[in-house]
Amino acid sequence: MLSKQMIQLFENISGVENVQYSTASLLAYSYDATANFQALPDLIIAPRNTSEVSQIVKLCSTHNIPIVPRGSGTNLSAGTTPTSGGVVLLFKNMNKIIELDEENMTITVQPGVITKAVSDVVEQKGLFYPPDPSSRKISTIGGNLSENSGGLRGLKYGVTKDYVMALEAVLPNGDIIRTGGKLAKDVAGYDLTSLFVGSEGTLAIITEATLKLIPKPIYQETILSLFRTIEEAAETVSAILAAKIIPTTLEFMDKGTLEAVEDYSKIGLPVNCEAVLLIEQDGAQETVQQDIDKIYEICAQHGAINVSKAKTEEEAEQLKTARRDALSALARLRPTLILEDATVPRSKIPQMVHAIKRIADKYNVTIRTFGHAGDGNLHPTCLTDIRDEEEMERVEKAFEEIFQASIDLGGTITGEHGVGEMKAEYLEWKIGEAGMSVMKAIKQGLDPKNIMNPGKIFAKATKKRMVVHNG
Amino acid sequence: MLSKQMIQLFENISGVENVQYSTASLLAYSYDATANFQALPDLIIAPRNTSEVSQIVKLCSTHNIPIVPRGSGTNLSAGTTPTSGGVVLLFKNMNKIIELDEENMTITVQPGVITKAVSDVVEQKGLFYPPDPSSRKISTIGGNLSENSGGLRGLKYGVTKDYVMALEAVLPNGDIIRTGGKLAKDVAGYDLTSLFVGSEGTLAIITEATLKLIPKPIYQETILSLFRTIEEAAETVSAILAAKIIPTTLEFMDKGTLEAVEDYSKIGLPVNCEAVLLIEQDGAQETVQQDIDKIYEICAQHGAINVSKAKTEEEAEQLKTARRDALSALARLRPTLILEDATVPRSKIPQMVHAIKRIADKYNVTIRTFGHAGDGNLHPTCLTDIRDEEEMERVEKAFEEIFQASIDLGGTITGEHGVGEMKAEYLEWKIGEAGMSVMKAIKQGLDPKNIMNPGKIFAKATKKRMVVHNG
Repeated sequence: MLSKQMIQLFENISGVENVQYSTASLLAYSYDATANFQALPDLIIAPRNTSEVSQIVKLCSTHNIPIVPRGSGTNLSAGTTPTSGGVVLLFKNMNKIIELDEENMTITVQPGVITKAVSDVVEQKGLFYPPDPSSRKISTIGGNLSENSGGLRGLKYGVTKDYVMALEAVLPNGDIIRTGGKLAKDVAGYDLTSLFVGSEGTLAIITEATLKLIPKPIYQETILSLFRTIEEAAETVSAILAAKIIPTTLEFMDKGTLEAVEDYSKIGLPVNCEAVLLIEQDGAQETVQQDIDKIYEICAQHGAINVSKAKTEEEAEQLKTARRDALSALARLRPTLILEDATVPRSKIPQMVHAIKRIADKYNVTIRTFGHAGDGNLHPTCLTDIRDEEEMERVEKAFEEIFQASIDLGGTITGEHGVGEMKAEYLEWKIGEAGMSVMKAIKQGLDPKNIMNPGKIFAKATKKRMVVHNG
Repeated sequence: MLSKQMIQLFENISGVENVQYSTASLLAYSYDATANFQALPDLIIAPRNTSEVSQIVKLCSTHNIPIVPRGSGTNLSAGTTPTSGGVVLLFKNMNKIIELDEENMTITVQPGVITKAVSDVVEQKGLFYPPDPSSRKISTIGGNLSENSGGLRGLKYGVTKDYVMALEAVLPNGDIIRTGGKLAKDVAGYDLTSLFVGSEGTLAIITEATLKLIPKPIYQETILSLFRTIEEAAETVSAILAAKIIPTTLEFMDKGTLEAVEDYSKIGLPVNCEAVLLIEQDGAQETVQQDIDKIYEICAQHGAINVSKAKTEEEAEQLKTARRDALSALARLRPTLILEDATVPRSKIPQMVHAIKRIADKYNVTIRTFGHAGDGNLHPTCLTDIRDEEEMERVEKAFEEIFQASIDLGGTITGEHGVGEMKAEYLEWKIGEAGMSVMKAIKQGLDPKNIMNPGKIFAKATKKRMVVHNG
């Protein structure tokens, strides 16, 4: 609880109208899209500019008040849940596109801008901002930056980090820092831009970003390919890449996901198969057509029961939207949905899909899997009910075993959703003691008072790895 | 000076045959490719594996002995000059290609592998490692990683960092850390891979790296375009990019560089012009041909006096080799050559080229300029003589003013050569006090004893910015 006096100090900075602390408001910002994490903040503030952010941080620093920056709350690892209370920072007043620089192919934006708004604006100029997290219609650039969001185009175009050229950020002591520039190359000291992107609000508050753009691909084609077995789908993925084709999108859905998506979107997706690949290529028309022809052939060679090409742009968009809505579609099936994003080297996808199936059976939980097959980034999604404690225990054990399987296959505990609070206990499994000590040294060096999104990334204790006997 | 006893401890780790301390050896490793920096190390060690590196680092840590990791010594910012003495680490015994993984499109190498050897090996499999620093025939991957090397293909393909997926490194306390993985996406904590790449040996000793590969472009064309004025060349660069074409290579040479290069390479380069652009495009044949036709047209529209296409692959390679040899060519003209790499947003190239000319005139020094025009990464190169103190003072002032001009245009003090010891005094001009404090906190957190390449990146004092009156 903050004192009336303290609240007034915050109001003096950002104006009474931008500070909330009613019970309804505090409740509204007590959770994000992650199941099973909730905690009340003490105050919600929506600063109007960088200077206000700096003043707020200084005040928080002086009084040891935690700060949780928050975009649209689509976070899936409890990264924006205010589990230590404190101040939730909103960016609804810092949502401007500052500059679109066509000559240097950059766009400079405030953190509150919606991801899709950036894409739309630049595409009107023949430019392209590739990162496209599934939540892009509501997620903010600030959230994408904090989480280093991925998306459906990661295979060919990379993730958010690959498009960040410069940042303005407020440090834990309130100082304002500028990193990078509109520069294709810059090696002036440590790469702080890459350090801050994906740091989940634990090192600095990003207040402005300059993003790299590329020319918009002029042509694209999308195909959908159905398979009798998951192996066939996985082998097709490998074969496409072995043919030296890097599609823009190479998405996988299992039967269960496909059924839910069709039931939700009603676009006439075929469901009489065990696995489906949604494949998109973009670029120059001739190249795309050649690639798609070859992909078509590869799908057929690997036992596809049906391969169909989207006939119009609308049809292609419909397919991609259906895939992006997988999460919403699955969410309707049971009260609670827990989405994971264990990621493995792409050659290990068949093993990983099998491991997930085996683990789901072992713990008798319902897991449906979809994800970015080309990236090795799968989203095993558990349909459950947090009110059922006994089931939740089994769910937790199943996910622990999925993390272990992923790491044993050379993978990671999170490909694009972040560590947040949800996976903090497992981080050491991936990065080891030495990795933890380096990350802690950085955190301690920059944020000695631990006011920046405390509890995220760094857990109080690391989970012990289970001894798993797979007979 | 290390005691006999101490030297023996190092010999116990890596074997007598891998430890050198004769005066000749110490002299041989007392400098790199940077003019005007020289200092004797105490010992040269060539460890045979990561475990030995770890033991060496532990020993150095215990006894506060500086460690300078060194590739082939092509560094241009005194990054590998042992200015604090100590141990120079060589990687000639750690020069193996560990694995080429075609399915995941990665190559895992030790730091001592020559850059070009990596390119050659992967190209035989239809794969491609894009980073191509001009020194690639002799530079090592370890050096490229420490410096985040750029090269001629940066515009389209990015720099070394964009191709590093995983690292093994030895921390300042001797612990071995592994970052990343063969993973297209990984957000498990802070991006230590990006932090270590480009950290110039000040945070960790990289002992292994997994590099990302892409399919080898199947076709390429190269053209050379001559211009009467630098403005015309610069406008051509802007016009090509405005046409939404991103060439692989978009290199600039001024008349003085061109003359030196022709004199060196004798391949019949035309020298009757003020500026030349070397432009390469790669990809699918149809796309490349379309792009090159359009580029041809744009060059003509912007006043090119001559545009010629390389007729064979050999001819194209000859042109690129000539450009890569610019440094060697210029080095023959006067006793000392100082190469800079101030980098600006690409739209600012004309202003930057003019600023360089004006500054060279003002201080009466000879500067020739070439570089990566598409990246805004210019290499103003001063031909001088370090034995002439009075001239060297003017040279230093000229470079200071070039750094200022670059920063005033939104640029940086170094695009691809690193800060090293040479530019440490200027780093704060680019990144500000807040940037310095963050970088120092990271350095202090990881290397509290300051044994890792001390004196690099961080200077004892920052240069005061001159008050420049440009009338």
